[in-house]
Amino acid sequence: MAQEKTVSKEITPQSEDFSRWYLDVIKKADLMDYAPVRGCIVFKPDGYALWEGIQQELDRRFKETGHRNAYFPLFIPESFFQKEKEHVEGFNPELPFVTEAGGEQLEEKLAIRPTSETMFGHMYAKWIQSYRDLPMLINQWANVVRWEKRTLPFLRTSEFLWQEGHTAHEDEVDARKETMQMLEIYREFSENVLAIPVITGQKTPSEKFAGAVDTFSIEAMMQDGRAVQAGTSHYLGTNFAKAFEIQFTDRENQLQFCHTTSWGVSTRLIGALIMVHGDDRGLVLPPKLAPTQAVIIPIGPAKLRETVNAKAEELYNELRKAGVRVKLDDREGITPGWKFNEYEMRGVPVRIEIGPRDIENGQAIVVSRITGAKVSVPLDDFVDQVQSMIANVHTEMFNKALAFQQEQTYDVDSLDQMKSLFEQKRGFVYAGWCGSADCEKQVKEETGATSRNIPFEPKVKKNKCLVCGEHGEQTVVFARAY
Amino acid sequence: MAQEKTVSKEITPQSEDFSRWYLDVIKKADLMDYAPVRGCIVFKPDGYALWEGIQQELDRRFKETGHRNAYFPLFIPESFFQKEKEHVEGFNPELPFVTEAGGEQLEEKLAIRPTSETMFGHMYAKWIQSYRDLPMLINQWANVVRWEKRTLPFLRTSEFLWQEGHTAHEDEVDARKETMQMLEIYREFSENVLAIPVITGQKTPSEKFAGAVDTFSIEAMMQDGRAVQAGTSHYLGTNFAKAFEIQFTDRENQLQFCHTTSWGVSTRLIGALIMVHGDDRGLVLPPKLAPTQAVIIPIGPAKLRETVNAKAEELYNELRKAGVRVKLDDREGITPGWKFNEYEMRGVPVRIEIGPRDIENGQAIVVSRITGAKVSVPLDDFVDQVQSMIANVHTEMFNKALAFQQEQTYDVDSLDQMKSLFEQKRGFVYAGWCGSADCEKQVKEETGATSRNIPFEPKVKKNKCLVCGEHGEQTVVFARAY
Repeated sequence: MAQEKTVSKEITPQSEDFSRWYLDVIKKADLMDYAPVRGCIVFKPDGYALWEGIQQELDRRFKETGHRNAYFPLFIPESFFQKEKEHVEGFNPELPFVTEAGGEQLEEKLAIRPTSETMFGHMYAKWIQSYRDLPMLINQWANVVRWEKRTLPFLRTSEFLWQEGHTAHEDEVDARKETMQMLEIYREFSENVLAIPVITGQKTPSEKFAGAVDTFSIEAMMQDGRAVQAGTSHYLGTNFAKAFEIQFTDRENQLQFCHTTSWGVSTRLIGALIMVHGDDRGLVLPPKLAPTQAVIIPIGPAKLRETVNAKAEELYNELRKAGVRVKLDDREGITPGWKFNEYEMRGVPVRIEIGPRDIENGQAIVVSRITGAKVSVPLDDFVDQVQSMIANVHTEMFNKALAFQQEQTYDVDSLDQMKSLFEQKRGFVYAGWCGSADCEKQVKEETGATSRNIPFEPKVKKNKCLVCGEHGEQTVVFARAY
Repeated sequence: MAQEKTVSKEITPQSEDFSRWYLDVIKKADLMDYAPVRGCIVFKPDGYALWEGIQQELDRRFKETGHRNAYFPLFIPESFFQKEKEHVEGFNPELPFVTEAGGEQLEEKLAIRPTSETMFGHMYAKWIQSYRDLPMLINQWANVVRWEKRTLPFLRTSEFLWQEGHTAHEDEVDARKETMQMLEIYREFSENVLAIPVITGQKTPSEKFAGAVDTFSIEAMMQDGRAVQAGTSHYLGTNFAKAFEIQFTDRENQLQFCHTTSWGVSTRLIGALIMVHGDDRGLVLPPKLAPTQAVIIPIGPAKLRETVNAKAEELYNELRKAGVRVKLDDREGITPGWKFNEYEMRGVPVRIEIGPRDIENGQAIVVSRITGAKVSVPLDDFVDQVQSMIANVHTEMFNKALAFQQEQTYDVDSLDQMKSLFEQKRGFVYAGWCGSADCEKQVKEETGATSRNIPFEPKVKKNKCLVCGEHGEQTVVFARAY
């Protein structure tokens, strides 16, 4: 069987080598390939379909909250980056520059956008005159480039796809409300669509976005205990407004600077999705995102195939009509066992097996990808029960990921405790922190863990800095991170 | 009224200055703004929404015909362009190059993609081994850059958005079938969604895509009689397959080169849409693409507002439930007359006026944007009649554009005839052509018109070359073009 050969490569078990497992899974599930440009990948159709699902779900949420899409240029004049001091320091080392075009040297080098605060800032300054123009709520789906030294498919690539929202407001209250609203949309989306539990909180000053006043994030735990920053929302204060002169006449006819925000998620969510849910058999896709939610596989002897296939097609049509993204695999010459493995590897949430005996008994066997549970479903209540099993897969995935996250969450009182913890374990570590960047840096140097965020709802409260032992104003979550 | 002030700028009549009219309309309808990078624009929300509509309609058609989306890198190594001789000659003059990144000079310059045949070629060579891997049918939605000397918003910009389909096939027959299928999808989409009649045909060798064997196009006529190439589909033969070694083992176990195709449409469709349908009052949007298909405006004295607004909201909800993209503008302090102008300028296909007397009479007034016809619609058959009026707007727009195209279509027997024709008129000119590039060039030099395509179904048949008088094998459509 030609098809059987193409997927014969085994997946390294997670317990043996998590990184190897990850690369095996994305290769075997045909999600990406390496591009002939350093640090870039090709998003193959099965990988890109996950991004299309993410886009659809988020785009609806953005529009429901009054945002509209637009498209801003890829090229940003070098001088724009000079206008916001922290911003240029943060991004300059990662910028690629176009220096020649159309056979001529350019007078001013053009950066490829790593993010578009500066370009939005420049345009918003033109578009905003009065408080009546506010709030301005625009999102963009685009490619961005950051010249990364170390890359990892989906999680860190030189070019990646993302959305970046940029909004301008009359005052701090309104801008902070927006910042929090978008963070909450990310949290809700992450939990309800991706089935990924996250820790919401505020970044420490040394981990915040270059140019922001405050950065907030959602942090997810991978199955190797490392963290992925899955989305960020920034309150930018008047930093970019001052740099780009985004000013408006307020209700008292006074000239004011806008308060702006920005917020984004990227194709790294695809990587997070795989690392949170996947197992040794391959991908496990959350039903709301899965391009195929259920696959029907006819079984039994060849001579009875006709009756079985007819029934399978009937079920296929019923599910389809009910809005289930279902696939029927009635290919001949490929064993059911091979098909089972194939769709498990591809992460299809629910598998439906139907054979001659099932038809006699008026039932089909439905198997959950996440628990492996096999359920006999009566055909006279088939659609409802399959739909509820698909919904259950989401809940089971979320609960499993949450239980894992909770199991792998620790708290420590000192750096020594943290060091010995990391000798055996990986995960989120709660600790007190005095607020000093030096203490934070020391944690990183000695444990490899960075502060993920200062959670809004910490599991424990600490009151002494783990490094210096001084008064720890904040409880921080530390973790090694992608 | 603040809002009234922002749109006070008048639109230059088409008859006075078509170019001015175009720029006035896109500015007044708030579709775009100029970016601070040469030849680039910002697609503002109202302009980008048109692209979102185009994407949605085309993407469905691509998927229904078995294509899947993927995403390939923005950067293409310079050496890739050298591999296909015609391709490099065609695109080299327009390429921007990244020469430094992350603070270092790159060893090999990276082009920003102007189109991705080379990158797809490189990857397809890796992915395709056997006839079982074929056809490979992938599309990409992406930004591309061509460093243009003369730019015009939407129609010709240095960076633009587009889709590019790239497919690989076992043989010429299959690849040509794909080429024609995609051209037909573009034609059907153009006519049934954009309400733009087009001439389908084959490009002459000197106008074909750099690297193609044959290029086919759909050509639309703007209201100044100039042409816009609205979509192209290329049969690439084995040119790129040989350059990138896209080979497969065929059914007889022989190594063969793939036959490939590519096809694309871009954001220039937005420009075409405006120039085909717009009038002196502003945009006219085809209903299937219009973000707002109908707007309800309550009228009548302020003291009766409450009853009228309640009824207007009822109608709004009914239309919405029926799937109509409807907007209710019940803002106070803005006159109905101003609102009428505003939504006409924005091209909303149908306007619904409702006042106290209408309610008494159990009716509402529905006005078509394209014909200006006012119809009294009984409220007891409201939704059906409004829906059918919206559908009519599409038909009326298409018919009007088709009538214009036919009126402005001429045929000539000689270059002299063509020259005197262009002294008074603009449009599509049918003429015989011997097939020589020199004759074609002479037409261009003396009339400014280029060959648009060799129509599959020419309105007239000519048999003598308009330039040299020799046997004219082909009947070509010439026009001045954007």
